[in-house]
Amino acid sequence: MQAWRLRMEVALDRRLPPADMVPARLHEAMRYAVLGGGKRVRPALVFATAATLGLPEERVEAVACAVEIVHVYSLVHDDMPSMDDDDLRRGRPTCHKAYDEATALLVGDALQPLAFQWLATDPSLPPEPTVRLKLIELLAVASGTHGMAGGQAIDLQSQGARLQIAQVDDMHERKTGAVIRACVLMAAACAPSREAVDEAALERFAGAIGLAFQIQDDLLDVIGDATTLGKATGADREHGKPTYPALIGVEASQLRTRKLHEEALEALAGFGERAAPLVELSNWLLSRSY
Amino acid sequence: MQAWRLRMEVALDRRLPPADMVPARLHEAMRYAVLGGGKRVRPALVFATAATLGLPEERVEAVACAVEIVHVYSLVHDDMPSMDDDDLRRGRPTCHKAYDEATALLVGDALQPLAFQWLATDPSLPPEPTVRLKLIELLAVASGTHGMAGGQAIDLQSQGARLQIAQVDDMHERKTGAVIRACVLMAAACAPSREAVDEAALERFAGAIGLAFQIQDDLLDVIGDATTLGKATGADREHGKPTYPALIGVEASQLRTRKLHEEALEALAGFGERAAPLVELSNWLLSRSY
Repeated sequence: MQAWRLRMEVALDRRLPPADMVPARLHEAMRYAVLGGGKRVRPALVFATAATLGLPEERVEAVACAVEIVHVYSLVHDDMPSMDDDDLRRGRPTCHKAYDEATALLVGDALQPLAFQWLATDPSLPPEPTVRLKLIELLAVASGTHGMAGGQAIDLQSQGARLQIAQVDDMHERKTGAVIRACVLMAAACAPSREAVDEAALERFAGAIGLAFQIQDDLLDVIGDATTLGKATGADREHGKPTYPALIGVEASQLRTRKLHEEALEALAGFGERAAPLVELSNWLLSRSY
Repeated sequence: MQAWRLRMEVALDRRLPPADMVPARLHEAMRYAVLGGGKRVRPALVFATAATLGLPEERVEAVACAVEIVHVYSLVHDDMPSMDDDDLRRGRPTCHKAYDEATALLVGDALQPLAFQWLATDPSLPPEPTVRLKLIELLAVASGTHGMAGGQAIDLQSQGARLQIAQVDDMHERKTGAVIRACVLMAAACAPSREAVDEAALERFAGAIGLAFQIQDDLLDVIGDATTLGKATGADREHGKPTYPALIGVEASQLRTRKLHEEALEALAGFGERAAPLVELSNWLLSRSY
């Protein structure tokens, strides 16, 4: 994880427009939002999937960068006053606090096309145009209304409402799950012979780990430590969000995380020893305290 | 223009997610923002370029749709309180007024990836993957910090400031010009043999017409009629925006529009009679009263 994080810092820094290029304030704010923090969970999933499939990290580095800036854009917009209204992110002022609301809006708006530009043009990606198109399609669908943006819309509509567990699952499958699945499938799309890749198994893995990751996130909001997390805890409850701990209790949530974790590992069984990077990453993700 | 507008209404309606699909409120708001209004200037430029190059309209319809929803997303975000804070657009309440700010934010966020998804997958586009990648690259660059989002950032920073005319030109080349150029170049990218297309001439045309269109827009804000325009006039002045009429006066602005119009038509000379659709569109654009 640490090595991947360092790799990402360099890779993102190199690809983002320099802070002194016009419009300087916007470029500076984009770099502020993207660089210098974050767990880089999504890039780690891209790299771990690549390692499991025997792909060199260079080949998927631009995928990891594209997915990460889409994730960052969603954080910047979600933190804004009209959404979750958060002041702190990764232990620092949120983008609209450090800059202003209009700039934060534009940071998100400008990061999105940059992700697609990288997927369309980055020379380190597999050269086949059909592979690039597949990557673009996967990321576009995962971030649209069937994915991340749709999940956020359901989240906003649900505040204060009583949801069924199936509705909360659907919300999270879109909001977090879709991009996590995209990380795994985009890395798989970079494999030289896609026929040889058991995509169904990877999808099962990604589905289980994505949901488990989200429940863990909900749990940390209840039982985590604000300093370690770098953001305020208890915010979900304050916003009346339909979280798993609120819905089924802390213990049942922990049990469900463990069951999903098992499901995720079972899905990887066919890969044998090769799946070690994904197994280790899963273990880390579900034992984390931040 | 009228036929293209009708075509677009059907084409966009067919491609947008239905309003009763979950998340229904978001899909409904997306359709509200996109359908039922607008001059559809950018689609018209796509179709007129295609007609000039002898391409059937079907072949570029998805390009016109993708460009238009990127334009609409930018209007929805620009109208928000932290940006231009406008209540009226196309004669109706702006998206955040008709719905709410969070929904308007998500409408813009969800329209962006949809545009790239259409370019990557729409079956009516030229089937060559390299053509699709070129379209994606052109739209991504035109809407990022070197284009639309960057122009909007410069616009916001410039309110109340005294800009030189060259800086205002740069701002508008990004804010409006980049996507207008993309419309023309994306249509050209769909031509079966791109070598045969004089792309440099089309770029010269698009550069001149894009700037002329923007000056005309500034002029209409000063001398236009709010009812015909479907939005309030005088807003630029109220926001202390560095417009052409404010900078060089109404008459000099009108003169500059006419000169740019001539430049645009000269750039098309090499296409002879075939350029009639682009010539007619230019004449309409620069004589419009809304």
